[in-house]
Amino acid sequence: MSIFQVLLVAGTHGNEINAPWILKQWDRYPNFINDYGIKVRKELGNPKALKMSSRYIDYDLNRSFREDFFDAKSNNNYETIRAKELISTFGKSGGYPCQLAIDMHSTTSSMGNCVVIYGRRPQDLALASLLQFRLGMPIYLHESDESQKGFLVESWPCGLVIEVGPVPQGLIHSNIIRQTKLVLEVIFEELSKVRLGIARYPMQFIAHCHLGSVDFPRDSNGNQTAYIHPSIQGRDWFPLRKGDPLFITSENIEITYNGQNTVFPVFINEAAYAEKNIAMSLTKKEILPCTDSLQKALEKVVN
Amino acid sequence: MSIFQVLLVAGTHGNEINAPWILKQWDRYPNFINDYGIKVRKELGNPKALKMSSRYIDYDLNRSFREDFFDAKSNNNYETIRAKELISTFGKSGGYPCQLAIDMHSTTSSMGNCVVIYGRRPQDLALASLLQFRLGMPIYLHESDESQKGFLVESWPCGLVIEVGPVPQGLIHSNIIRQTKLVLEVIFEELSKVRLGIARYPMQFIAHCHLGSVDFPRDSNGNQTAYIHPSIQGRDWFPLRKGDPLFITSENIEITYNGQNTVFPVFINEAAYAEKNIAMSLTKKEILPCTDSLQKALEKVVN
Repeated sequence: MSIFQVLLVAGTHGNEINAPWILKQWDRYPNFINDYGIKVRKELGNPKALKMSSRYIDYDLNRSFREDFFDAKSNNNYETIRAKELISTFGKSGGYPCQLAIDMHSTTSSMGNCVVIYGRRPQDLALASLLQFRLGMPIYLHESDESQKGFLVESWPCGLVIEVGPVPQGLIHSNIIRQTKLVLEVIFEELSKVRLGIARYPMQFIAHCHLGSVDFPRDSNGNQTAYIHPSIQGRDWFPLRKGDPLFITSENIEITYNGQNTVFPVFINEAAYAEKNIAMSLTKKEILPCTDSLQKALEKVVN
Repeated sequence: MSIFQVLLVAGTHGNEINAPWILKQWDRYPNFINDYGIKVRKELGNPKALKMSSRYIDYDLNRSFREDFFDAKSNNNYETIRAKELISTFGKSGGYPCQLAIDMHSTTSSMGNCVVIYGRRPQDLALASLLQFRLGMPIYLHESDESQKGFLVESWPCGLVIEVGPVPQGLIHSNIIRQTKLVLEVIFEELSKVRLGIARYPMQFIAHCHLGSVDFPRDSNGNQTAYIHPSIQGRDWFPLRKGDPLFITSENIEITYNGQNTVFPVFINEAAYAEKNIAMSLTKKEILPCTDSLQKALEKVVN
């Protein structure tokens, strides 16, 4: 088996510029981030989009890691080509095979410093639980959504997204730099402990599991007719109960949440999601045990 | 003389989408904004850029109202053509001649709800003083900057920019809608009072006068080497004194303000200004009397 290496990706979205800044500074100042002896491959996800400070060129790179895209001969999207390139370089058959991918993002939503994982791969859950245990980071478990797939980290044996916000696109913000740096160092520290067999896992951890997304209210022509209600703006992770306001129209009509169950909205008013018809996503809270099998799955990845 | 009409422009920058939303809602619901009987011509500044949610297509429209651009036969920028079009439609020889232009913007900086005027045209100063008197809005008086010119409102006999922030680009935010609506209604109310001869002016008002702009620190290759210091982030309009930190490098070296005079920074960390090499602009505070001649200049415009 090849040596354990982490693929660290910044700028998967070209208008999220804080993580690329961090990579650049780390190249310049080797002591900028403590890697705790972990071998790290640093890579810009979408350098072309980054130059233009736009999210992507042809298609969202972080929805482009899809077999059906790779197989389609007619798909010449820059991002499909770039996704294949990343896999061929850093995948198991590449020149720099990595077993674990960390993809660094920022958001205009008030997500704080959080972890996103895709599905319930035991090794991802174990790593996320370590981060939550150390830093209290909320975990957004994205699953079972046919309209949103092809995420970068899914193409590696283990991987997660770090999502930090709120921050406008195209702007370096000291809070975002500080928070991203902090979680990176804790990831490397925990991975080094897992390798040494001295990681301390929680008994259980909390995951916010994806239920679905909510679009803005629209008229029959598809025009948005209401915006995020001020009482929910910036309230990512807070409980939303039946009757709580979601949107407000220009005529001050409130549109409320009418589900029976209390849910927890995330990615409220993320600027990039308007084109995806997502005003917010809803999650439910689950408490998951950090079982031996989760821990063993992560140990297998890092050794 | 033609009837008094106000040109109200939204979306001069295509990624500032709150003001375009307001215009659309106003078209839909005539009672959305009280115009106090003022005749208003509503117009999208840069509809093509708005569709793409980008600031501009070829060149910043709000730097394109320049005679030298109009005269250059080789200048086929979309924005130069659009600027000429706006003037030919809403200028004094147009089909809908307007005497006063209001250009609505938003910013990622913490500018609050403020007024920007260009130079010291007495009618602009008089109108800005009325808004400050009513709402306490700070006035940014932009002048004597050869590197920044060709602003839209300068092409009309009277005009000002409303600048509201902070808000990320490409995102509708309830605070920004509310603040923009508020100042619009007060503008129309005050203009109607000026027309009726019952406007109440302040004795004097405060203007923050442009001194110049500060770029990010850069290395010899032009790469940015530091970002906005956390202690100044979001502190637009607050005094900056000799020795106060401005930037911080990756090695935690603070770069301080070394001017002798206390200044007041504005547009700190505006995402769109990075390409203009502007990390912030500095202003000095001036107290200006609201003289009769200012008031008479505004009265002349509106009657």
